[in-house]
Amino acid sequence: MRAYLDCYPCFFTQALRTSKMLNLDEKKTWEILNEVSLVIPEIPFGATPPEIGRKVYQIISKRTGLEDPFKEIKEKCTRQALSLFPELKKLINSSEDRLMTAIRLSIAGNVIDFGANADFDLKRDLETILSQGFAINHYPQFCKALAKAQNILYIADNAGETVFDRLLIEELNKPVIYVVRENPIINDATREDALDSGIDRVAQIISSGYDAPGNILKFCSEDFFNAFNSAPLIISKGQGNYEGLSDEDRPIFFLLKAKCQVVARDIGVERGSIILMKK
Amino acid sequence: MRAYLDCYPCFFTQALRTSKMLNLDEKKTWEILNEVSLVIPEIPFGATPPEIGRKVYQIISKRTGLEDPFKEIKEKCTRQALSLFPELKKLINSSEDRLMTAIRLSIAGNVIDFGANADFDLKRDLETILSQGFAINHYPQFCKALAKAQNILYIADNAGETVFDRLLIEELNKPVIYVVRENPIINDATREDALDSGIDRVAQIISSGYDAPGNILKFCSEDFFNAFNSAPLIISKGQGNYEGLSDEDRPIFFLLKAKCQVVARDIGVERGSIILMKK
Repeated sequence: MRAYLDCYPCFFTQALRTSKMLNLDEKKTWEILNEVSLVIPEIPFGATPPEIGRKVYQIISKRTGLEDPFKEIKEKCTRQALSLFPELKKLINSSEDRLMTAIRLSIAGNVIDFGANADFDLKRDLETILSQGFAINHYPQFCKALAKAQNILYIADNAGETVFDRLLIEELNKPVIYVVRENPIINDATREDALDSGIDRVAQIISSGYDAPGNILKFCSEDFFNAFNSAPLIISKGQGNYEGLSDEDRPIFFLLKAKCQVVARDIGVERGSIILMKK
Repeated sequence: MRAYLDCYPCFFTQALRTSKMLNLDEKKTWEILNEVSLVIPEIPFGATPPEIGRKVYQIISKRTGLEDPFKEIKEKCTRQALSLFPELKKLINSSEDRLMTAIRLSIAGNVIDFGANADFDLKRDLETILSQGFAINHYPQFCKALAKAQNILYIADNAGETVFDRLLIEELNKPVIYVVRENPIINDATREDALDSGIDRVAQIISSGYDAPGNILKFCSEDFFNAFNSAPLIISKGQGNYEGLSDEDRPIFFLLKAKCQVVARDIGVERGSIILMKK
């Protein structure tokens, strides 16, 4: 999905929100906004939002000297999610359809986001999503594809959400390759975040070779490219990966909450909808 | 009031909204957003929102070749307001406090805005504002100042709102100089819009000599500057003029609806509040 023009104000909103979160003074924030302003016109028409978002957050890193500005937040989200793990596991154990419950939980974990919408409450949102109807639900197709697949490529989104992914991976009962970002970007999961969530106990972790907040194939490593092109079933989590991969012709199931109006419109659903959608 | 950093995303939102309103195609809109992006870093820290807004809307004019992109909209708003005029005049005639009712109506007219918030419904908003409590109400001070003043400088905001201003001017019972923008900018009132509203029947119309969507003294004409500095009582309508004049040490009464969060915070009220405030 290429960036819509409505994404433009949002890049500034994101830079501003992150600057506030980092308690940057006004002058520094002003410098960041101005650099974002200068960089945006260099981006060619038709670029995807993760490509632009990457540049925005790189400017913040560069200007603050913080390689991973969201490090503490990511660790906190992971700890919070891990503290819920036993309870969520019980929920799956006591549910009629373990896989469906695990999918719902995995989407619920997708509310942990400091890019598209930082205004979340994990416990409250969890309850909502567990009872929310899907706007698009390709669960039967997913079950069929899962039954046939020898292995699964699972493309991660955010740190903390990773714990919820772990719950789903445990229900897939297939070998899983779990794809993280090469370097820190917003609160997206890196190898370290995946390890903190215990993903290594349930999957092989690889990096995409790139650090946009959403995988963009042309920039990813050859290893990832090959894994992506040979996987019989791909699970793509979150908006960023949808934005990067929605035009790829592969057996992808997108699991996400449509947090922003632009993505919701692109998919053809209401904002706030939850989605299990086959490409 | 200098531009807050929260104003930055808003400039893009305004450029985007105006481009949509003008049915510009995506490529043209993209060009406009990119030019806005390049121009913003040239603006010195501490500039006021009208100064930046002026540049944004000038880019739209230049890129579309439309000297007055809001011309039709302004004419429509003025016609709509004029159609309400007899009814509103009756309302004043039947009210206990004619001046207060006229002030409320004049603030109600301030909802006509295509910059800060284009999502208004004149008839609905009129009713709301007529019964809404003031967040800041310096009416006693206003009455006292009015009684003493030999004449009044009345700084206009938007076309259509001008008709509501005419109602208030008729209640002031003093010679009034009515200040409009030198050239078209957003839907702000120019001399032509003031004439369309019949302002010439109740006041002398002068131009500020500048075309920012809010008066900024240092850019205005000497004539305006002199009128501003000698006026015993100044009525400043709307957010844009507040943004431009809030730091000036003159006997100004600001009449406005705080339509955006930034201005509301600067004044110290809730967004949506109505204000009659002495500087």
